[in-house]
Amino acid sequence: MIVVMSPQATHEQTELASALLRDNGLTPVPAKAADSALLISEGTGTPELTASIERSAGVERVVLVSGAQRLTSRDFHPENTQVTVGGRDGVTVGGTEFLVIAGPCAVEGPQQMTTVVDVVTAARAGMLRGGAFKPRTSPYSFQGLGVAGLALLAEQRGRTGLPVVTEVVAPADVERVAEESDMLQIGTRNMQNFDLLREAGASGRPVLLKRGMAATIEEWLLAAEYLMQMGNSDVVLCERGIRSFERSTRFTLDLSAVAEAKRRTHLPVIVDPSHSTGQPHLVGPMSLAAAACGADGLLIDVHTNARGALCDGAQALDAAQFTDLMDRLEPVVEAVGRMLAQPRSLAQV
Amino acid sequence: MIVVMSPQATHEQTELASALLRDNGLTPVPAKAADSALLISEGTGTPELTASIERSAGVERVVLVSGAQRLTSRDFHPENTQVTVGGRDGVTVGGTEFLVIAGPCAVEGPQQMTTVVDVVTAARAGMLRGGAFKPRTSPYSFQGLGVAGLALLAEQRGRTGLPVVTEVVAPADVERVAEESDMLQIGTRNMQNFDLLREAGASGRPVLLKRGMAATIEEWLLAAEYLMQMGNSDVVLCERGIRSFERSTRFTLDLSAVAEAKRRTHLPVIVDPSHSTGQPHLVGPMSLAAAACGADGLLIDVHTNARGALCDGAQALDAAQFTDLMDRLEPVVEAVGRMLAQPRSLAQV
Amino acid sequence: MIVVMSPQATHEQTELASALLRDNGLTPVPAKAADSALLISEGTGTPELTASIERSAGVERVVLVSGAQRLTSRDFHPENTQVTVGGRDGVTVGGTEFLVIAGPCAVEGPQQMTTVVDVVTAARAGMLRGGAFKPRTSPYSFQGLGVAGLALLAEQRGRTGLPVVTEVVAPADVERVAEESDMLQIGTRNMQNFDLLREAGASGRPVLLKRGMAATIEEWLLAAEYLMQMGNSDVVLCERGIRSFERSTRFTLDLSAVAEAKRRTHLPVIVDPSHSTGQPHLVGPMSLAAAACGADGLLIDVHTNARGALCDGAQALDAAQFTDLMDRLEPVVEAVGRMLAQPRSLAQV
Amino acid sequence: MIVVMSPQATHEQTELASALLRDNGLTPVPAKAADSALLISEGTGTPELTASIERSAGVERVVLVSGAQRLTSRDFHPENTQVTVGGRDGVTVGGTEFLVIAGPCAVEGPQQMTTVVDVVTAARAGMLRGGAFKPRTSPYSFQGLGVAGLALLAEQRGRTGLPVVTEVVAPADVERVAEESDMLQIGTRNMQNFDLLREAGASGRPVLLKRGMAATIEEWLLAAEYLMQMGNSDVVLCERGIRSFERSTRFTLDLSAVAEAKRRTHLPVIVDPSHSTGQPHLVGPMSLAAAACGADGLLIDVHTNARGALCDGAQALDAAQFTDLMDRLEPVVEAVGRMLAQPRSLAQV
Repeated sequence: MIVVMSPQATHEQTELASALLRDNGLTPVPAKAADSALLISEGTGTPELTASIERSAGVERVVLVSGAQRLTSRDFHPENTQVTVGGRDGVTVGGTEFLVIAGPCAVEGPQQMTTVVDVVTAARAGMLRGGAFKPRTSPYSFQGLGVAGLALLAEQRGRTGLPVVTEVVAPADVERVAEESDMLQIGTRNMQNFDLLREAGASGRPVLLKRGMAATIEEWLLAAEYLMQMGNSDVVLCERGIRSFERSTRFTLDLSAVAEAKRRTHLPVIVDPSHSTGQPHLVGPMSLAAAACGADGLLIDVHTNARGALCDGAQALDAAQFTDLMDRLEPVVEAVGRMLAQPRSLAQV
Repeated sequence: MIVVMSPQATHEQTELASALLRDNGLTPVPAKAADSALLISEGTGTPELTASIERSAGVERVVLVSGAQRLTSRDFHPENTQVTVGGRDGVTVGGTEFLVIAGPCAVEGPQQMTTVVDVVTAARAGMLRGGAFKPRTSPYSFQGLGVAGLALLAEQRGRTGLPVVTEVVAPADVERVAEESDMLQIGTRNMQNFDLLREAGASGRPVLLKRGMAATIEEWLLAAEYLMQMGNSDVVLCERGIRSFERSTRFTLDLSAVAEAKRRTHLPVIVDPSHSTGQPHLVGPMSLAAAACGADGLLIDVHTNARGALCDGAQALDAAQFTDLMDRLEPVVEAVGRMLAQPRSLAQV
Repeated sequence: MIVVMSPQATHEQTELASALLRDNGLTPVPAKAADSALLISEGTGTPELTASIERSAGVERVVLVSGAQRLTSRDFHPENTQVTVGGRDGVTVGGTEFLVIAGPCAVEGPQQMTTVVDVVTAARAGMLRGGAFKPRTSPYSFQGLGVAGLALLAEQRGRTGLPVVTEVVAPADVERVAEESDMLQIGTRNMQNFDLLREAGASGRPVLLKRGMAATIEEWLLAAEYLMQMGNSDVVLCERGIRSFERSTRFTLDLSAVAEAKRRTHLPVIVDPSHSTGQPHLVGPMSLAAAACGADGLLIDVHTNARGALCDGAQALDAAQFTDLMDRLEPVVEAVGRMLAQPRSLAQV
Repeated sequence: MIVVMSPQATHEQTELASALLRDNGLTPVPAKAADSALLISEGTGTPELTASIERSAGVERVVLVSGAQRLTSRDFHPENTQVTVGGRDGVTVGGTEFLVIAGPCAVEGPQQMTTVVDVVTAARAGMLRGGAFKPRTSPYSFQGLGVAGLALLAEQRGRTGLPVVTEVVAPADVERVAEESDMLQIGTRNMQNFDLLREAGASGRPVLLKRGMAATIEEWLLAAEYLMQMGNSDVVLCERGIRSFERSTRFTLDLSAVAEAKRRTHLPVIVDPSHSTGQPHLVGPMSLAAAACGADGLLIDVHTNARGALCDGAQALDAAQFTDLMDRLEPVVEAVGRMLAQPRSLAQV
């Protein structure tokens, strides 16, 4: 049960509603949404309780939600949520536009960034990606440029007008990363790093939440719930492959999960065909499939010197491959009634 | 190493080539392809051996194949194989056409068949499916109508001009099923029933080979190799979902496997979105995704009375859902440069 | 619901009971157990139906079973079933004895068999294994010696007095293999080859049923149900590893499944640590673990020339490893209150 | 390649060795072990480089390690590492003793703690567990008592003399948790929370590192590498089940991974049969199996009021079940040549 307080409700009114829920055996957890305080309980209580809460002072409405998700559920918010990244001049994901986010896996230096970003913008990507803080399986692998990488990303944003997304791996870094980028990425290994989720939820920035490589759809949505509970409704989900027995691909891209997640939640869902398949020749086909099945966008690794990449170069597309993909993608995007997203700053030109 | 004998080669010449291979440490296995005898060995031997075999009487050519597959490999047959089902007036899969095979999971009776088939033909499916022999997890579940079901299928074929595919579960039934249908289906539980594969390979009928629910892509292609070794090159692969930890779907549809299989083999690959997802609302999105990523067709369960179905009714599309799917499918098929397949008998009208 | 007819019941009485079930909406499937006819239905019907069936002529008792299993369920047969292999002088599995079955993965020749069997008997194995018909992933791999292999196995049985188990892969081979061995093995790839299960169930021989590599415990027990439905209650289950993402082992040995299966079914359960782990250094630890958690026995690959093995040599134990394992196994077997099984013919000496 | 500096080496000498490695194309990462500085590189360099490094001032020895692990590898430390928890009077894990850690999943209150701990000590557990900070899939589930829970744990430690382990979920909490407990637990969802690993590695406390539910053995050992790189060699690994398709158990307990991990690393490995199986009736059999296959201990949930538990009560053993388990465990522990661990403070009595 979700109790939505009116924007004008006083703290005291919220406390009274909370006490009423507790008196009836529920354990309400406070949350925020836009201008309203929320009280969220696992159970649904009796119809009498619902009626009595609805009559309480300061209560706007009560929403009964089936299943374990609350704020991420379509029961709570039936329409598609559209997330705008990069402010007023930015791009929107979750509406009729299809957003392609592209860039190198890891930010390696100014020259690399300029070369890759030139390729990506020429091919009409709508947003940039690039990792400054890299979570690596081994402590002896390249861990990213850190703060210096953030600056290089910001530089490309300034140069191109495209918003940027970059990964954050530690709660202590959230504020800094939020300042220097347009969207925070939570990686697959941190999907249940609840401390990090709470910090990112409180950051005020849109968040890209990758699915854990062994997470069920339900667990993924509940991780998003941690973000929304902090008052952040600018959450974009990203399917990036799950662990299975098949060894020809790095992970098994689960496109059914995209369609199923879209059914259960109002949040946008995009797909990462690069990290899931781990092989450039599969990125194209899986990008087209993602667009066809209702995904709201793609997150693609592009590199102009794949062999020399410090991180995951093997799976990145080169310039020709990315350009070719964008050419083949557009007809499929249009066949499902959508169009490629571009920042409003550029689209107005 | 594959040694291809010329169509005119004598049995003695084949034996001599085989002896030469054995003398050099290989263990050639005899196989057939169109009009030629083949000798297939796991290793590749030395360049000297290749040269010496190529000079032997009756030898047409020697093909060196990387990996474990032989006859199914693109090394052996670089172009796409096109499989024609239903003879001269039938449909072709693996070329530019996209083939939709539809019908009930199980044949239940004449009334059911006519109703479903009318829906399916009106929506422009290219071929019919229907199970007469059903492999069931429990011995106490409905096991199919058997021979009576085959007759009902044949009746619909006659009435509509659409070819039919039906499953065969026992080696002893292969001949009968081959007589009464246009294509034999090997189900996921029988992908490594090697005895059944050999019988189906020798039947002279095209074969639809479903991927085992825990089979790697390599194991799937090697199962197809059993069919081709018997001289049957009319083999169509069907991805139908693999077992994973995710519980929202019956299986995890592995569309990367479609693109990867197409890269490795010349055989057509189709997708079963019904049995993989197990849920009607996911069949549409996954059908579009399959078409977009390069699959050559679909295998879809349709029912006009899903609640009363004796087998797997829960996942079947009803008439409106199937018609809607076909309408949404066509633009995606065209966006990737293909068109919906129809039997030549009907297309000429 | 299982209706057990009395051994003296006439065919007519069974038909009448069946009609009564059908009149009440159930769909009874006939089965056999020892001397009685059975009628098995998926539902449980009403208490009134139960009472009325129990009063019918020729009906001995009615058993209501929870879950999908019937004859394999502990509801139907609360005590452990003990399966005797090799007749009056043979070995028993499922009681207090712990049975170690050992031998080569594939029968390769008389010299190999004698050497391996000498090692195995000296180390006090209770039964022999060896494959004559081998289901192989690739058609170009060694497929077993076939009938000649059966003869070599029979020879070792005569020489040592140990019963033998060997795999059968085709329904047409069941009779032959049943004649020349003491127990039929159904391999992991054939766990849902229902035609083969029915033939093996009707053979009169004990059957060793391996779990499918992607089969749930429930599916495994339902496969055993196919054997028992044919009147064969001498069924032994064998856990042999399931497919998972972990790549250090060939499969993931699921010992929880042993304890869980023992809870649900009265049938004996043994473990194959060789094919599951695929590595000799893990066979020892997993054998001890199996004994400790309640398994009734082991199935172990032993080879005296692992490098030259024609099939799966890499995982087999050599003589010293197997002898060492048996020495370490005995204290664990005794710590759980059991003893190593030996054929009665040898034990009497 | 691991370069071990002598304890007397100066900072300058370490820098010179590092420069020499860099000049030869390696990228050394600094690490600590006991009293020595270490330089760890992914590659192994040439024999000439090894010789030249070994001659450098301040270098004690060079260890070449196969595979990706370094400090956790048996190549680096061939003997079993024994980890002592609770200081001089504490318990040791990794030697001949077998350590049973038991307690409630979550600390709920003083009464609950005393009741459970009395059961656990009476049954001769060697150490206490209890969660104060709980990582929960849903933000609306009970999140643990936090700091108040730590105090309750410390109280039981004082009362019984048993060391305690408790989970830490956020880098900012590490110092606090390290002060109030004897061992830090890193949970399955945080196995690749690298920031948390680094903090825990620097805490000076022994760490219990659970395997990620989708982590390979290699990834698990590399996570331990993050701890050891910070100079912490008191690391105990804990297998707790992996995600698979089987639905009868919460996770699939992978005991082969215990034996395989023990082969690759010198660190102790224990098993959590409670969270892996999720069912009390499987905890006993899996505990015996773990002891038999070479695990160094167990981590077991015990509750005296399972139905009322605020967290995962369904899987906890009650008093009678835990006492019975300990009685059955001891003979198996002794059968593999070990004995149950007790704190030295109690053992001396």
